[in-house]
Amino acid sequence: MQLTQHTDYAIRVLLYAQSHPDRLVNITEIADFYQISRSHLAKVVAALTQTGYLQGVRGKKGGLKLGLDPAEINLGTLVTQFEPLNLVECFSDKNQCVITTNCRLKNVLFEATKAFLAVLNQYTLHDLKMQPDVIQFISLKPTN
Amino acid sequence: MQLTQHTDYAIRVLLYAQSHPDRLVNITEIADFYQISRSHLAKVVAALTQTGYLQGVRGKKGGLKLGLDPAEINLGTLVTQFEPLNLVECFSDKNQCVITTNCRLKNVLFEATKAFLAVLNQYTLHDLKMQPDVIQFISLKPTN
Repeated sequence: MQLTQHTDYAIRVLLYAQSHPDRLVNITEIADFYQISRSHLAKVVAALTQTGYLQGVRGKKGGLKLGLDPAEINLGTLVTQFEPLNLVECFSDKNQCVITTNCRLKNVLFEATKAFLAVLNQYTLHDLKMQPDVIQFISLKPTN
Repeated sequence: MQLTQHTDYAIRVLLYAQSHPDRLVNITEIADFYQISRSHLAKVVAALTQTGYLQGVRGKKGGLKLGLDPAEINLGTLVTQFEPLNLVECFSDKNQCVITTNCRLKNVLFEATKAFLAVLNQYTLHDLKMQPDVIQFISLKPTN
């Protein structure tokens, strides 16, 4: 059981943008910072922009910034929007499990997922804020 | 976020064995019943036997049966044993995320996973018991 890379990277991008409230950021520097694929990150950023979590500023000095106040970015809402929460086959449209109509597992897993999200609902991006000096330290470290 | 097929199939195998308390079952019939890969199922059955959830009976009339009372098979324990609960990269040994030491996300996801498992801990295999007549009905349906 793990979050998709898409959701994981979405949270990381928002954390990075939050750590630089005084300037715009861009995809290349975020990819360099986390040492992750730029092309994958571009898709994540597109989704974050489309959903309003990020705001793009056009132009030569353009870039990205948070589209919402960090205290308004609820983790549970974010994960629900980005993550396919199909715990087992019968949660999805492509379900072919023969016992579906007679199986109680789905309800139990649904209840457990609700409890999982209820915890995330208690936190916002603001609660995850990283120390600016640590961000700066990591940025300055050689990547080799 | 989804359970691995390994865990999903493990639960299905136990549900099937529970539905046939009066006789031994075997891998072929379980694969036929669920219409899933026999070879994948064989690995799952091996793991269930090794952990004591299933008991193998050798011989010409051999087969498999539950190794524990259904009321003793706790869903939370089973999922914890079968499922890699590495929600994001930093939960695993292969973690390379640069912000790990300064990131609060791990604790939040750990708390959420605990809540997820706490729900599963409230249920046993016995609680998921299927109606025997429905199992029989599904078994009799033509699979085309």
